[in-house]
Amino acid sequence: MRVAELSRRTGVSVASIKYYLREGLLPPGERTSPNQASYGEEHVRRLRLVRALIDVGGLSVAGTRDVLAAVDADDVALHHVLGATQDALLGEPAATDDDATERAGKLLDDLVARRGWRVTPTNPGRRAVVEILATSERLGTDVLAGLLDTYAETLEPLARREVGAVVARSDREDVVESAVLGTVLGAGLISALRTMAHESASAELASGAAPPPEG
Amino acid sequence: MRVAELSRRTGVSVASIKYYLREGLLPPGERTSPNQASYGEEHVRRLRLVRALIDVGGLSVAGTRDVLAAVDADDVALHHVLGATQDALLGEPAATDDDATERAGKLLDDLVARRGWRVTPTNPGRRAVVEILATSERLGTDVLAGLLDTYAETLEPLARREVGAVVARSDREDVVESAVLGTVLGAGLISALRTMAHESASAELASGAAPPPEG
Repeated sequence: MRVAELSRRTGVSVASIKYYLREGLLPPGERTSPNQASYGEEHVRRLRLVRALIDVGGLSVAGTRDVLAAVDADDVALHHVLGATQDALLGEPAATDDDATERAGKLLDDLVARRGWRVTPTNPGRRAVVEILATSERLGTDVLAGLLDTYAETLEPLARREVGAVVARSDREDVVESAVLGTVLGAGLISALRTMAHESASAELASGAAPPPEG
Repeated sequence: MRVAELSRRTGVSVASIKYYLREGLLPPGERTSPNQASYGEEHVRRLRLVRALIDVGGLSVAGTRDVLAAVDADDVALHHVLGATQDALLGEPAATDDDATERAGKLLDDLVARRGWRVTPTNPGRRAVVEILATSERLGTDVLAGLLDTYAETLEPLARREVGAVVARSDREDVVESAVLGTVLGAGLISALRTMAHESASAELASGAAPPPEG
Protein backbone atom coordinates (compact mmCIF):
# COMPACT_ATOMS: atom_id res chain seq x y z
CA MET A 1 0.00 0.00 0.00
CA ARG A 2 1.03 3.65 -0.49
CA VAL A 3 1.88 5.92 2.45
CA ALA A 4 -1.58 7.61 2.20
CA GLU A 5 -3.33 4.29 2.78
CA LEU A 6 -0.94 3.39 5.60
CA SER A 7 -1.93 6.71 7.20
CA ARG A 8 -5.64 6.01 6.72
CA ARG A 9 -5.36 2.47 8.12
CA THR A 10 -3.48 3.53 11.27
CA GLY A 11 -4.79 7.04 11.96
CA VAL A 12 -1.17 8.29 11.99
CA SER A 13 -0.54 11.38 9.81
CA VAL A 14 1.69 11.12 6.72
CA ALA A 15 4.03 13.70 8.27
CA SER A 16 4.44 11.54 11.42
CA ILE A 17 5.00 8.40 9.32
CA LYS A 18 7.78 10.19 7.40
CA TYR A 19 9.30 11.37 10.66
CA TYR A 20 9.28 7.81 12.09
CA LEU A 21 10.90 6.54 8.85
CA ARG A 22 13.68 9.14 9.13
CA GLU A 23 14.22 8.30 12.82
CA GLY A 24 14.39 4.57 12.10
CA LEU A 25 11.31 3.68 14.16
CA LEU A 26 9.67 2.26 11.04
CA PRO A 27 11.59 0.15 8.49
CA PRO A 28 11.65 1.59 4.94
CA GLY A 29 9.00 0.36 2.50
CA GLU A 30 9.81 -1.40 -0.72
CA ARG A 31 10.86 1.22 -3.28
CA THR A 32 8.57 1.12 -6.37
CA SER A 33 9.86 4.32 -8.05
CA PRO A 34 12.41 7.03 -7.09
CA ASN A 35 9.68 8.90 -5.15
CA GLN A 36 7.39 6.12 -4.05
CA ALA A 37 7.48 3.14 -1.71
CA SER A 38 5.07 0.37 -0.86
CA TYR A 39 4.19 -0.65 2.70
CA GLY A 40 2.82 -3.90 4.08
CA GLU A 41 0.97 -5.30 7.11
CA GLU A 42 4.20 -5.34 9.13
CA HIS A 43 4.24 -1.53 8.82
CA VAL A 44 0.66 -1.30 10.10
CA ARG A 45 1.55 -3.36 13.17
CA ARG A 46 4.82 -1.55 13.83
CA LEU A 47 3.05 1.83 13.62
CA ARG A 48 0.47 0.67 16.16
CA LEU A 49 3.28 -0.32 18.52
CA VAL A 50 5.15 2.97 17.98
CA ARG A 51 1.95 4.89 18.70
CA ALA A 52 1.36 2.93 21.92
CA LEU A 53 4.95 3.54 23.08
CA ILE A 54 4.93 7.28 22.29
CA ASP A 55 1.29 8.34 22.85
CA VAL A 56 0.32 6.09 25.75
CA GLY A 57 3.72 5.35 27.28
CA GLY A 58 5.02 8.89 26.80
CA LEU A 59 8.38 7.55 25.54
CA SER A 60 10.90 9.70 23.68
CA VAL A 61 12.01 8.69 20.17
CA ALA A 62 15.26 7.38 21.69
CA GLY A 63 13.37 5.36 24.33
CA THR A 64 11.08 3.94 21.64
CA ARG A 65 14.12 2.95 19.58
CA ASP A 66 15.59 1.04 22.58
CA VAL A 67 12.39 -0.94 23.13
CA LEU A 68 12.05 -1.74 19.40
CA ALA A 69 15.67 -2.95 19.32
CA ALA A 70 14.84 -5.42 22.12
CA VAL A 71 11.66 -6.51 20.29
CA ASP A 72 13.63 -7.16 17.09
CA ALA A 73 16.64 -8.91 18.67
CA ASP A 74 15.75 -12.57 18.32
CA ASP A 75 18.37 -13.63 20.83
CA VAL A 76 16.88 -11.53 23.66
CA ALA A 77 14.56 -13.50 25.95
CA LEU A 78 10.99 -12.22 26.30
CA HIS A 79 11.54 -11.61 30.02
CA HIS A 80 14.30 -9.12 29.14
CA VAL A 81 12.17 -7.44 26.47
CA LEU A 82 9.54 -6.82 29.16
CA GLY A 83 12.29 -5.49 31.45
CA ALA A 84 13.50 -3.07 28.76
CA THR A 85 9.89 -1.90 28.30
CA GLN A 86 9.42 -1.28 32.04
CA ASP A 87 12.73 0.58 32.27
CA ALA A 88 11.87 2.82 29.32
CA LEU A 89 8.35 3.52 30.65
CA LEU A 90 9.23 4.23 34.25
CA GLY A 91 12.76 5.58 34.11
CA GLU A 92 14.86 6.27 37.18
CA PRO A 93 13.18 8.49 39.79
CA ALA A 94 15.36 11.10 41.49
CA ALA A 95 17.14 9.82 44.58
CA THR A 96 16.96 11.62 47.92
CA ASP A 97 19.13 10.04 50.55
CA ASP A 98 18.27 10.66 54.17
CA ASP A 99 17.34 8.58 57.22
CA ALA A 100 13.71 8.24 56.10
CA THR A 101 14.89 6.87 52.72
CA GLU A 102 17.17 4.40 54.45
CA ARG A 103 14.41 3.13 56.76
CA ALA A 104 12.01 2.88 53.81
CA GLY A 105 14.59 0.87 51.84
CA LYS A 106 14.94 -1.54 54.76
CA LEU A 107 11.12 -1.93 54.99
CA LEU A 108 10.99 -2.80 51.28
CA ASP A 109 13.98 -5.17 51.37
CA ASP A 110 12.33 -7.04 54.24
CA LEU A 111 9.07 -7.26 52.30
CA VAL A 112 10.82 -8.61 49.18
CA ALA A 113 12.65 -11.23 51.26
CA ARG A 114 9.46 -12.19 53.13
CA ARG A 115 7.49 -12.65 49.90
CA GLY A 116 10.34 -14.30 47.98
CA TRP A 117 10.01 -11.81 45.12
CA ARG A 118 12.56 -12.10 42.30
CA VAL A 119 13.26 -8.45 41.65
CA THR A 120 16.55 -7.00 40.41
CA PRO A 121 18.12 -4.08 42.33
CA THR A 122 17.52 -1.77 39.32
CA ASN A 123 13.75 -2.42 39.06
CA PRO A 124 12.21 1.06 38.51
CA GLY A 125 9.35 0.33 40.92
CA ARG A 126 11.77 -0.25 43.79
CA ARG A 127 13.02 3.33 44.01
CA ALA A 128 9.45 4.67 43.66
CA VAL A 129 8.22 2.54 46.58
CA VAL A 130 11.11 3.77 48.73
CA GLU A 131 10.40 7.42 47.85
CA ILE A 132 6.69 7.10 48.69
CA LEU A 133 7.31 5.37 52.03
CA ALA A 134 9.94 7.99 52.93
CA THR A 135 7.52 10.82 52.01
CA SER A 136 4.85 9.21 54.21
CA GLU A 137 7.27 9.06 57.12
CA ARG A 138 8.30 12.70 56.62
CA LEU A 139 4.59 13.67 56.70
CA GLY A 140 4.26 11.77 59.95
CA THR A 141 1.84 9.07 58.77
CA ASP A 142 2.21 5.30 58.96
CA VAL A 143 -1.06 4.35 57.24
CA LEU A 144 0.68 3.12 54.04
CA ALA A 145 3.53 1.33 55.81
CA GLY A 146 0.88 -0.52 57.79
CA LEU A 147 -0.79 -1.70 54.60
CA LEU A 148 2.42 -2.73 52.80
CA ASP A 149 1.99 -6.49 53.30
CA THR A 150 -1.67 -6.26 52.31
CA TYR A 151 -0.71 -4.50 49.06
CA ALA A 152 2.02 -7.03 48.26
CA GLU A 153 -0.21 -10.04 48.98
CA THR A 154 -2.98 -8.56 46.84
CA LEU A 155 -0.77 -7.63 43.90
CA GLU A 156 1.11 -10.93 43.68
CA PRO A 157 -1.64 -13.12 42.17
CA LEU A 158 -2.89 -10.12 40.15
CA ALA A 159 0.56 -9.57 38.60
CA ARG A 160 0.75 -13.28 37.71
CA ARG A 161 -2.55 -13.05 35.86
CA GLU A 162 -1.56 -9.81 34.12
CA VAL A 163 1.80 -11.16 32.96
CA GLY A 164 0.09 -14.39 31.92
CA ALA A 165 -2.45 -12.47 29.83
CA VAL A 166 0.34 -10.41 28.21
CA VAL A 167 2.71 -13.25 27.30
CA ALA A 168 -0.22 -15.26 25.90
CA ARG A 169 -0.31 -12.76 23.00
CA SER A 170 0.73 -14.16 19.64
CA ASP A 171 4.15 -12.58 19.04
CA ARG A 172 6.76 -10.22 20.46
CA GLU A 173 5.22 -7.05 19.02
CA ASP A 174 1.83 -7.95 20.52
CA VAL A 175 3.43 -8.85 23.83
CA VAL A 176 5.27 -5.55 24.10
CA GLU A 177 2.25 -3.52 22.97
CA SER A 178 0.09 -5.23 25.61
CA ALA A 179 2.79 -4.70 28.22
CA VAL A 180 2.91 -0.95 27.48
CA LEU A 181 -0.85 -0.53 27.53
CA GLY A 182 -1.21 -2.78 30.56
CA THR A 183 1.49 -0.96 32.52
CA VAL A 184 0.41 2.60 31.74
CA LEU A 185 -3.36 2.37 31.19
CA GLY A 186 -3.61 -0.49 33.70
CA ALA A 187 -2.18 1.69 36.50
CA GLY A 188 -4.82 4.35 35.72
CA LEU A 189 -7.56 1.73 35.56
CA ILE A 190 -6.59 0.23 38.93
CA SER A 191 -6.42 3.67 40.50
CA ALA A 192 -9.88 4.66 39.16
CA LEU A 193 -11.52 1.36 40.12
CA ARG A 194 -9.94 1.69 43.57
CA THR A 195 -11.66 5.09 43.95
CA MET A 196 -15.00 3.43 43.17
CA ALA A 197 -14.31 0.51 45.52
CA HIS A 198 -13.44 3.01 48.28
CA GLU A 199 -16.80 4.73 47.92
CA SER A 200 -18.57 1.40 48.00
CA ALA A 201 -16.64 0.22 51.08
CA SER A 202 -17.28 3.54 52.84
CA ALA A 203 -21.02 3.29 52.01
CA GLU A 204 -21.07 -0.24 53.47
CA LEU A 205 -19.42 0.96 56.67
CA ALA A 206 -21.71 4.02 56.91
CA SER A 207 -24.84 1.89 56.60
CA GLY A 208 -23.49 -0.73 58.97
CA ALA A 209 -24.36 -3.41 56.42
CA ALA A 210 -22.42 -6.64 56.28
CA PRO A 211 -20.31 -6.87 53.10
CA PRO A 212 -21.65 -9.28 50.48
CA PRO A 213 -20.10 -12.76 50.81
CA GLU A 214 -16.66 -13.10 49.13
CA GLY A 215 -16.64 -14.97 45.83
CA MET B 1 3.25 29.53 70.73
CA ARG B 2 4.37 32.35 68.42
CA VAL B 3 4.18 32.05 64.63
CA ALA B 4 7.95 31.40 64.46
CA GLU B 5 7.60 28.31 66.65
CA LEU B 6 4.54 27.16 64.69
CA SER B 7 6.72 27.39 61.57
CA ARG B 8 9.56 25.45 63.20
CA ARG B 9 7.20 22.73 64.49
CA THR B 10 5.50 22.16 61.13
CA GLY B 11 8.22 22.95 58.59
CA VAL B 12 5.85 25.43 56.92
CA SER B 13 7.38 28.90 56.30
CA VAL B 14 6.05 31.94 58.19
CA ALA B 15 5.08 33.53 54.84
CA SER B 16 2.96 30.45 53.95
CA ILE B 17 1.34 30.42 57.41
CA LYS B 18 0.36 34.09 56.98
CA TYR B 19 -1.02 33.33 53.53
CA TYR B 20 -3.12 30.42 54.88
CA LEU B 21 -4.42 32.71 57.68
CA ARG B 22 -5.45 35.36 55.12
CA GLU B 23 -7.14 32.71 52.93
CA GLY B 24 -9.03 31.25 55.89
CA LEU B 25 -7.37 27.81 55.69
CA LEU B 26 -6.05 28.28 59.22
CA PRO B 27 -8.16 29.82 62.04
CA PRO B 28 -6.70 32.99 63.58
CA GLY B 29 -4.59 32.64 66.71
CA GLU B 30 -5.46 34.24 70.02
CA ARG B 31 -4.43 37.89 69.86
CA THR B 32 -1.90 38.75 72.63
CA SER B 33 -0.99 42.26 71.42
CA PRO B 34 -1.92 44.39 68.38
CA ASN B 35 0.87 42.73 66.35
CA GLN B 36 1.11 39.31 67.92
CA ALA B 37 -1.00 36.17 68.20
CA SER B 38 -0.59 32.88 69.98
CA TYR B 39 -1.17 29.50 68.32
CA GLY B 40 -2.00 26.11 69.80
CA GLU B 41 -1.81 22.39 69.00
CA GLU B 42 -4.96 22.66 66.86
CA HIS B 43 -2.98 24.96 64.52
CA VAL B 44 -0.16 22.42 64.26
CA ARG B 45 -2.63 19.70 63.26
CA ARG B 46 -4.57 21.89 60.85
CA LEU B 47 -1.33 22.98 59.13
CA ARG B 48 -0.32 19.34 58.67
CA LEU B 49 -3.68 18.65 57.04
CA VAL B 50 -3.44 21.76 54.81
CA ARG B 51 0.05 20.70 53.73
CA ALA B 52 -1.16 17.17 52.88
CA LEU B 53 -4.08 18.55 50.85
CA ILE B 54 -1.99 21.11 48.93
CA ASP B 55 1.46 19.46 48.64
CA VAL B 56 0.49 15.80 48.29
CA GLY B 57 -3.06 16.10 46.94
CA GLY B 58 -2.23 19.00 44.63
CA LEU B 59 -5.43 20.83 45.68
CA SER B 60 -6.01 24.52 45.02
CA VAL B 61 -6.69 26.89 47.92
CA ALA B 62 -10.41 26.81 47.01
CA GLY B 63 -10.44 22.99 46.89
CA THR B 64 -8.67 22.84 50.24
CA ARG B 65 -11.25 25.24 51.72
CA ASP B 66 -14.10 22.94 50.53
CA VAL B 67 -12.57 19.88 52.15
CA LEU B 68 -11.88 21.75 55.41
CA ALA B 69 -15.49 22.99 55.49
CA ALA B 70 -16.68 19.35 55.32
CA VAL B 71 -14.18 18.36 58.04
CA ASP B 72 -15.45 21.15 60.32
CA ALA B 73 -19.20 20.69 59.71
CA ASP B 74 -20.23 18.46 62.58
CA ASP B 75 -23.51 17.52 60.92
CA VAL B 76 -21.81 16.03 57.83
CA ALA B 77 -21.38 12.25 58.04
CA LEU B 78 -17.84 10.89 57.73
CA HIS B 79 -18.78 9.03 54.55
CA HIS B 80 -19.62 12.37 52.90
CA VAL B 81 -16.41 13.99 54.16
CA LEU B 82 -14.51 11.19 52.41
CA GLY B 83 -16.61 11.79 49.29
CA ALA B 84 -15.79 15.52 49.32
CA THR B 85 -12.10 14.62 49.68
CA GLN B 86 -12.21 12.23 46.70
CA ASP B 87 -14.06 14.78 44.56
CA ALA B 88 -11.57 17.52 45.37
CA LEU B 89 -8.58 15.23 44.73
CA LEU B 90 -9.72 13.65 41.51
CA GLY B 91 -11.96 16.29 39.92
CA GLU B 92 -14.04 15.67 36.84
CA PRO B 93 -12.08 14.28 33.90
CA ALA B 94 -12.91 15.69 30.47
CA ALA B 95 -15.72 13.85 28.71
CA THR B 96 -15.37 12.49 25.16
CA ASP B 97 -18.58 11.01 23.85
CA ASP B 98 -18.34 8.50 21.04
CA ASP B 99 -19.30 4.87 20.47
CA ALA B 100 -16.23 3.58 22.28
CA THR B 101 -17.16 5.68 25.34
CA GLU B 102 -20.70 4.36 25.26
CA ARG B 103 -19.56 0.72 25.06
CA ALA B 104 -17.04 1.31 27.86
CA GLY B 105 -19.80 2.84 30.04
CA LYS B 106 -21.93 -0.23 29.46
CA LEU B 107 -19.01 -2.54 30.41
CA LEU B 108 -18.53 -0.62 33.66
CA ASP B 109 -22.25 -0.45 34.53
CA ASP B 110 -22.47 -4.22 34.09
CA LEU B 111 -19.44 -4.70 36.33
CA VAL B 112 -20.89 -2.46 39.07
CA ALA B 113 -24.20 -4.35 38.93
CA ARG B 114 -22.45 -7.75 38.94
CA ARG B 115 -20.33 -6.85 41.99
CA GLY B 116 -23.13 -5.01 43.83
CA TRP B 117 -20.95 -1.93 44.28
CA ARG B 118 -22.62 1.09 45.90
CA VAL B 119 -21.18 3.87 43.80
CA THR B 120 -22.90 7.18 43.00
CA PRO B 121 -23.14 8.29 39.35
CA THR B 122 -20.79 11.23 40.08
CA ASN B 123 -17.95 9.14 41.54
CA PRO B 124 -14.78 10.60 39.95
CA GLY B 125 -13.30 7.14 39.35
CA ARG B 126 -16.24 6.15 37.15
CA ARG B 127 -15.49 8.58 34.32
CA ALA B 128 -11.77 7.74 34.48
CA VAL B 129 -12.47 4.00 34.08
CA VAL B 130 -14.72 4.71 31.09
CA GLU B 131 -12.07 6.93 29.45
CA ILE B 132 -9.34 4.30 29.88
CA LEU B 133 -11.47 1.44 28.52
CA ALA B 134 -12.52 3.62 25.56
CA THR B 135 -8.87 4.54 24.86
CA SER B 136 -7.97 0.83 24.94
CA GLU B 137 -10.69 0.04 22.44
CA ARG B 138 -9.56 2.88 20.14
CA LEU B 139 -6.02 1.46 20.27
CA GLY B 140 -7.43 -1.92 19.29
CA THR B 141 -6.53 -3.83 22.45
CA ASP B 142 -8.81 -5.82 24.76
CA VAL B 143 -6.20 -6.86 27.31
CA LEU B 144 -7.57 -4.52 30.03
CA ALA B 145 -11.25 -5.20 29.34
CA GLY B 146 -10.42 -8.89 29.73
CA LEU B 147 -8.92 -8.25 33.17
CA LEU B 148 -11.72 -5.97 34.44
CA ASP B 149 -13.37 -8.56 36.69
CA THR B 150 -10.00 -9.65 38.04
CA TYR B 151 -9.18 -6.05 38.96
CA ALA B 152 -12.57 -5.50 40.61
CA GLU B 153 -12.40 -8.74 42.60
CA THR B 154 -8.87 -7.94 43.74
CA LEU B 155 -9.59 -4.34 44.73
CA GLU B 156 -12.79 -5.02 46.67
CA PRO B 157 -11.29 -6.61 49.82
CA LEU B 158 -8.28 -4.29 49.53
CA ALA B 159 -10.52 -1.18 49.51
CA ARG B 160 -12.38 -2.49 52.57
CA ARG B 161 -9.11 -2.84 54.47
CA GLU B 162 -7.89 0.58 53.32
CA VAL B 163 -11.13 2.35 54.30
CA GLY B 164 -11.13 0.42 57.58
CA ALA B 165 -7.57 1.57 58.35
CA VAL B 166 -8.47 5.19 57.51
CA VAL B 167 -11.70 5.45 59.54
CA ALA B 168 -9.97 3.80 62.52
CA ARG B 169 -7.99 7.06 62.93
CA SER B 170 -8.83 9.07 66.03
CA ASP B 171 -10.75 12.05 64.63
CA ARG B 172 -12.04 13.71 61.48
CA GLU B 173 -8.82 15.62 60.72
CA ASP B 174 -6.80 12.42 61.03
CA VAL B 175 -9.31 10.52 58.92
CA VAL B 176 -9.21 13.08 56.11
CA GLU B 177 -5.42 13.40 56.24
CA SER B 178 -5.06 9.61 55.98
CA ALA B 179 -7.62 9.53 53.16
CA VAL B 180 -5.65 12.12 51.17
CA LEU B 181 -2.31 10.40 51.69
CA GLY B 182 -3.84 6.96 51.12
CA THR B 183 -5.57 8.02 47.92
CA VAL B 184 -2.69 9.92 46.33
CA LEU B 185 0.44 8.25 47.71
CA GLY B 186 -1.36 4.89 47.86
CA ALA B 187 -2.04 4.93 44.12
CA GLY B 188 1.67 5.55 43.49
CA LEU B 189 2.65 2.83 45.95
CA ILE B 190 0.34 0.26 44.33
CA SER B 191 1.62 1.17 40.88
CA ALA B 192 5.27 0.84 41.94
CA LEU B 193 4.75 -2.45 43.82
CA ARG B 194 2.85 -3.76 40.79
CA THR B 195 5.93 -3.03 38.64
CA MET B 196 8.03 -5.12 41.02
CA ALA B 197 5.44 -7.92 41.15
CA HIS B 198 5.40 -7.96 37.32
CA GLU B 199 9.16 -8.50 37.18
CA SER B 200 8.91 -11.27 39.73
CA ALA B 201 6.02 -12.98 37.88
CA SER B 202 7.86 -12.68 34.57
CA ALA B 203 11.02 -14.17 36.15
CA GLU B 204 8.93 -17.09 37.47
CA LEU B 205 7.48 -17.71 34.02
CA ALA B 206 10.87 -17.38 32.32
CA SER B 207 12.47 -19.94 34.64
CA GLY B 208 9.46 -22.25 34.39
CA ALA B 209 9.37 -22.47 38.19
CA ALA B 210 6.13 -23.17 39.99
CA PRO B 211 4.91 -20.12 41.91
CA PRO B 212 5.31 -20.37 45.69
CA PRO B 213 2.13 -21.65 47.39
CA GLU B 214 -0.51 -18.97 48.04
CA GLY B 215 -0.85 -17.85 51.64
